[in-house]
Amino acid sequence: MGLNPVLSMLGRRLRLAVIGGGPGSFIGEMHRRAARLDDRYELVAGVVSSNPERAIRAGIELGLSADRVFGDPVEMIEQEAARKDGADVVAIMTPNDSHYQYSVVALKHGFDVICDKPMTNTLENAEALHQKVLNSGLIFCLTHNYTGYPMVRQARAMVESGQVGTIRLVQVEYVQGGKADENDPDPSGDLPWRYDPVKGGPSLVMGDIGTHAHNLVRYITGLDVSEVAAEVGAIVPGRLVDDYAGALLRFENGARGIFWVTQAAAGVENCLRIRVSGTKGSLEWMQEIPQVLEFKPIDAPAQTRTPNGPGTLPLAARASRIVAGHPEGFPSGFANIYSDAAEAIAARRAGVEVDPLAMTFPNSLDGLLGVRFVHKVIESSEAGGRWVKV
Amino acid sequence: MGLNPVLSMLGRRLRLAVIGGGPGSFIGEMHRRAARLDDRYELVAGVVSSNPERAIRAGIELGLSADRVFGDPVEMIEQEAARKDGADVVAIMTPNDSHYQYSVVALKHGFDVICDKPMTNTLENAEALHQKVLNSGLIFCLTHNYTGYPMVRQARAMVESGQVGTIRLVQVEYVQGGKADENDPDPSGDLPWRYDPVKGGPSLVMGDIGTHAHNLVRYITGLDVSEVAAEVGAIVPGRLVDDYAGALLRFENGARGIFWVTQAAAGVENCLRIRVSGTKGSLEWMQEIPQVLEFKPIDAPAQTRTPNGPGTLPLAARASRIVAGHPEGFPSGFANIYSDAAEAIAARRAGVEVDPLAMTFPNSLDGLLGVRFVHKVIESSEAGGRWVKV
Amino acid sequence: MGLNPVLSMLGRRLRLAVIGGGPGSFIGEMHRRAARLDDRYELVAGVVSSNPERAIRAGIELGLSADRVFGDPVEMIEQEAARKDGADVVAIMTPNDSHYQYSVVALKHGFDVICDKPMTNTLENAEALHQKVLNSGLIFCLTHNYTGYPMVRQARAMVESGQVGTIRLVQVEYVQGGKADENDPDPSGDLPWRYDPVKGGPSLVMGDIGTHAHNLVRYITGLDVSEVAAEVGAIVPGRLVDDYAGALLRFENGARGIFWVTQAAAGVENCLRIRVSGTKGSLEWMQEIPQVLEFKPIDAPAQTRTPNGPGTLPLAARASRIVAGHPEGFPSGFANIYSDAAEAIAARRAGVEVDPLAMTFPNSLDGLLGVRFVHKVIESSEAGGRWVKV
Amino acid sequence: MGLNPVLSMLGRRLRLAVIGGGPGSFIGEMHRRAARLDDRYELVAGVVSSNPERAIRAGIELGLSADRVFGDPVEMIEQEAARKDGADVVAIMTPNDSHYQYSVVALKHGFDVICDKPMTNTLENAEALHQKVLNSGLIFCLTHNYTGYPMVRQARAMVESGQVGTIRLVQVEYVQGGKADENDPDPSGDLPWRYDPVKGGPSLVMGDIGTHAHNLVRYITGLDVSEVAAEVGAIVPGRLVDDYAGALLRFENGARGIFWVTQAAAGVENCLRIRVSGTKGSLEWMQEIPQVLEFKPIDAPAQTRTPNGPGTLPLAARASRIVAGHPEGFPSGFANIYSDAAEAIAARRAGVEVDPLAMTFPNSLDGLLGVRFVHKVIESSEAGGRWVKV
Repeated sequence: MGLNPVLSMLGRRLRLAVIGGGPGSFIGEMHRRAARLDDRYELVAGVVSSNPERAIRAGIELGLSADRVFGDPVEMIEQEAARKDGADVVAIMTPNDSHYQYSVVALKHGFDVICDKPMTNTLENAEALHQKVLNSGLIFCLTHNYTGYPMVRQARAMVESGQVGTIRLVQVEYVQGGKADENDPDPSGDLPWRYDPVKGGPSLVMGDIGTHAHNLVRYITGLDVSEVAAEVGAIVPGRLVDDYAGALLRFENGARGIFWVTQAAAGVENCLRIRVSGTKGSLEWMQEIPQVLEFKPIDAPAQTRTPNGPGTLPLAARASRIVAGHPEGFPSGFANIYSDAAEAIAARRAGVEVDPLAMTFPNSLDGLLGVRFVHKVIESSEAGGRWVKV
Repeated sequence: MGLNPVLSMLGRRLRLAVIGGGPGSFIGEMHRRAARLDDRYELVAGVVSSNPERAIRAGIELGLSADRVFGDPVEMIEQEAARKDGADVVAIMTPNDSHYQYSVVALKHGFDVICDKPMTNTLENAEALHQKVLNSGLIFCLTHNYTGYPMVRQARAMVESGQVGTIRLVQVEYVQGGKADENDPDPSGDLPWRYDPVKGGPSLVMGDIGTHAHNLVRYITGLDVSEVAAEVGAIVPGRLVDDYAGALLRFENGARGIFWVTQAAAGVENCLRIRVSGTKGSLEWMQEIPQVLEFKPIDAPAQTRTPNGPGTLPLAARASRIVAGHPEGFPSGFANIYSDAAEAIAARRAGVEVDPLAMTFPNSLDGLLGVRFVHKVIESSEAGGRWVKV
Repeated sequence: MGLNPVLSMLGRRLRLAVIGGGPGSFIGEMHRRAARLDDRYELVAGVVSSNPERAIRAGIELGLSADRVFGDPVEMIEQEAARKDGADVVAIMTPNDSHYQYSVVALKHGFDVICDKPMTNTLENAEALHQKVLNSGLIFCLTHNYTGYPMVRQARAMVESGQVGTIRLVQVEYVQGGKADENDPDPSGDLPWRYDPVKGGPSLVMGDIGTHAHNLVRYITGLDVSEVAAEVGAIVPGRLVDDYAGALLRFENGARGIFWVTQAAAGVENCLRIRVSGTKGSLEWMQEIPQVLEFKPIDAPAQTRTPNGPGTLPLAARASRIVAGHPEGFPSGFANIYSDAAEAIAARRAGVEVDPLAMTFPNSLDGLLGVRFVHKVIESSEAGGRWVKV
Repeated sequence: MGLNPVLSMLGRRLRLAVIGGGPGSFIGEMHRRAARLDDRYELVAGVVSSNPERAIRAGIELGLSADRVFGDPVEMIEQEAARKDGADVVAIMTPNDSHYQYSVVALKHGFDVICDKPMTNTLENAEALHQKVLNSGLIFCLTHNYTGYPMVRQARAMVESGQVGTIRLVQVEYVQGGKADENDPDPSGDLPWRYDPVKGGPSLVMGDIGTHAHNLVRYITGLDVSEVAAEVGAIVPGRLVDDYAGALLRFENGARGIFWVTQAAAGVENCLRIRVSGTKGSLEWMQEIPQVLEFKPIDAPAQTRTPNGPGTLPLAARASRIVAGHPEGFPSGFANIYSDAAEAIAARRAGVEVDPLAMTFPNSLDGLLGVRFVHKVIESSEAGGRWVKV
């Protein structure tokens, strides 16, 4: 149960440098807790604000030593690269538009990279970054954290092992209510980065949660979307950014699917839900009760699978820290991404050959396909809903 | 709680003649139980098989007197119309292609009609039948039975009373697993009527369950679909009839929605599920646990509504026979359709003016819109997924 | 699926005479609907009020013919016994204290009896009535209606077939909130019969719901309670009748259990819940979602069993009218008791030997053991909680 | 939301020394992760095995420096007390029988203490330890970790704020299946400490999980059990330790309750469940879905409360790290205990007056009352179930 103590390959924790996510930022806290939970990382350096002065103060507040808090990411990367005891890994949790630049610099200086999603805003950047990752031989981990839940991994493992049969139908929805009210920021003033298409990307809802939904399908089924017919737009009157998207999906193997994401469903909290139906049965999972995976075999009673319960497959078992019946949640799932990345990075640094696209965590190919999916959804929507090749 | 004893308007039970649904047929038993549960009908005549000889025997088995069992529906209608104590209502539960003909004959002879869904197979028939109903002044009740569940009615009543606000987003899915295996009837032999496009209609999945999903949206939201972008087809290899359909929806008021139906999701039983989001909150209902309606207000804790629980509105209360906490199920919901129809019919016969399109049960307009929706989904699918006006 | 058409043994519906349950009474409607649902009974006679005048009017309102509505139960029984086409069965749904008397008279005149629970108020009456039933050879059906739910029957069948192994532990609770407020009827005025110990029995909560909980344990496990250590009393200040009872249970086979019933849990609707643990796994069922039975095997994934889903055993299948995924509820469960009684009665009348204590529905032995359990709980409570043999 | 950065009171993390819980031990990992999650502790010293040699090796494996790994707890406490940069807190996660001794030594040397439950095995030790804590003025935190779940804290806060009214009825159950099989360790050989009454305490099931259930009631309701009538024993044949206990409860305010714990319910994972009913409504919580708290008001629709959802009270909000809809689990709940203890300890060390019995986490009084409850359950059981004053 849980991960092997692979870090003994290096004999020490990985040294982590972070870009973004100051104290009080939701995503910054999440990343740092994820790094901390399994004790595989040591936070050694950081640029934790885009405001250089604040970055210094906040870095020290986070416990960094004064010589390793920086106001500029590129400066940090260069200086850490120059240290003998410099960081091993750079984690990027900045607004979307800077993921590309910082990733490229970090890779260039030989750092493995952990990057928040979506990987980039533009398709060109996504393609370029993916290529650079492949060329570098370094690890690139994209924090589609929902793939870290034990029962998502159990679903993937059950598909891989053939228990679900050939996949035929996929339903995925990601429904939130956080943007149901009409009080958007005033577009004439300073916009939060998410509301600024240059920083937040071409579609708020698709970048924020659509890429999670897309990646979850890919993670569990192992299938890629081959064609999409879609609509994306704003349902809240006067809104300038997208708040819903629906799509019909065709998969490379002929399977069909449906995709629905919105942040404007009043009162709904964080309903990421997926159903995967194969020739042998259907899997159902919902993020709001992540400790449950329902499996409905075609000719036997429906089953309720739980972390470390009977029938747990290795990919799920390594993602669970406790005996059955003690649910873990979002922080543990996020930590699983970091811990798996640590294992891969330690192995690579210890000289073990690792295939950067055959990991238990999302990688740069996931990132590229996610960004491409966003663009194809927009393309189909603009083309009046017609089918578009992905 | 429950219906008022409106039948006292007539001082007797309504006399019911049935067409179709022999002993052992699922739908026949359902209709007859629905008629029986609240004691508002008396079964007096019937043609319960398409085979005249079997029809006679089976009718007597059902307790009908020998002079009121028939081998031919038209003969029955004529003879019942001629009797002084003849039937009041004709209930039709035959294969889809005969709904039109029998309804027309029944209306022509002055009978109120209860008819199984879909109303007709062709759009022309649907339009003609709806017009005949309007011209006749008679009651036409279409048994979209899921609208009989108390919590579906509660949902409708909450929307009507403004508790959900302006509707913005609708998700509906109807997922079954009954056709997940590949053993379809041999197309070179005698096909069950559902597999024969002439009898079963242009799209098996849309006629069987798609019209239910469509009607449920209309029943709860009061909104009509104005445009659809869709795909419909067969996912099971070699299958000649449709087993899945997905659609993006645009509603007359600008709301957006998603629609997904399939009978090929292995292991899933009967998952009809809907989420309706308005400016004030979201409603969620699932047929497999019909006694629960979740209401998630935009700024207050989520609520679990139950039949006759606190906050029950009149439309739901009249559909519940028991105090809170004693769930009713599918047979009770089906019976609510019959009992409401009985109330409307008795009122009409007692001289009360009734608006045949303003009932608590689905009517011929629902039927027409359902058939039209089926055809528009097919049209969009054939047009490469482009948006089609409904 | 569903019952066999055994009534063909008699070639007609059973003729039913009812005592109690006037129009508008919850329990009267329930009984009559239960008799009607499967068309195995014809209501022919009745005394539907304790007020003779009202009884006549209400009987006619229910559709009885004027010569078969009565003001006095004994008169009805005698007259129906004298008719050639008289009733076959007498159903009793009066206040508890008259169950004994009417049952005895009915049995004496050769009627099979369907009686509401608890069977009697006093232990002496229970013992005497049980003996009279045995001596009579007639069918006595006690309407512990929760045993009519398909998933309760599935639980019993799984225990019987050994799937649960040897029973070790039982938890049962029946929690309601209907008596959570403090507005009891004024004891100086006319009390509703339930609040009058002479009519309602020695313990309100035990008679109303405690006997249901007790019988459910017996029905599913087949085990009898051998010893009890208990407390019963009133938790609402000033209340004169019992509103809660708790008990530790020892079973004849050495199993242990816990029992908790109350009607004073504010906001709770009708939470009858049971868990039965054997050497091979645990069963869990809750009345508020009666269509679900959870089975947790000792070494395999937990299962969700549903009516007519995979693995349904015959006892459950015969109690389900519909294909899987279409939940039935309380009225159907109640009807199962009536329909099973009809089958047994028809068989007996057709000359088939039937063992009155080996039925699918609760019988007079269940009734006797239930009344005895009530008295033993009171006895232990009065003896300071010490263990009392049952 | 989440804790305030109170550690700035000290300007540094708390230094933690641990006794027990070597690498691979479930409880050791839990404690260390709990200390790590919010970055309020730094692990500085430890005795992580009862075998001195192994303790040294394992301590170094955990990243401790060689001069601060010890083979003997008393030695560690003395040496850490002597260091200028010595530990602030001692956390004890050893077999139950040593909790007393190590706590006493730690307190004597001025350390705040975090101790696993049950506090002690004997009532004498519990009373003595509680007194020593009071005399010391130091913080004593008992890791009844289930009280760290946000929704348990929400329940407590709702009771405290009067939303539930006066408590009348309490049901608590803790049901597990881990000891359902019959393969207990051979009593003639070396027993795991839990199976040895000297080390594990007088009742395995009561020490392991009964004290959790007892404390949960106390934590949420603020009420103490005043009398108990109970049975405790072994249901698995041949077992020498207790595996089930049932009890009727009377509370100081007149409320009544029921208590049921077992580790022999085959297939059940970790079902700790509580229902608290007051004059204004009932609360229901179950550990297996800890992110949900149901509140059923006496006269309004039932509510589903979630962490950081609408209506979250401060005590729950400070225990949640994420926005609503992102469930946290067992590790986060455990961490809440540690983080709250850190806040209290830092405050105390910073000179703020803290009341050691008025904390958000369980303390030595909880520990004493838990041990006393265990003994009173046994006493009542041995006295034939009669009521015993607690």
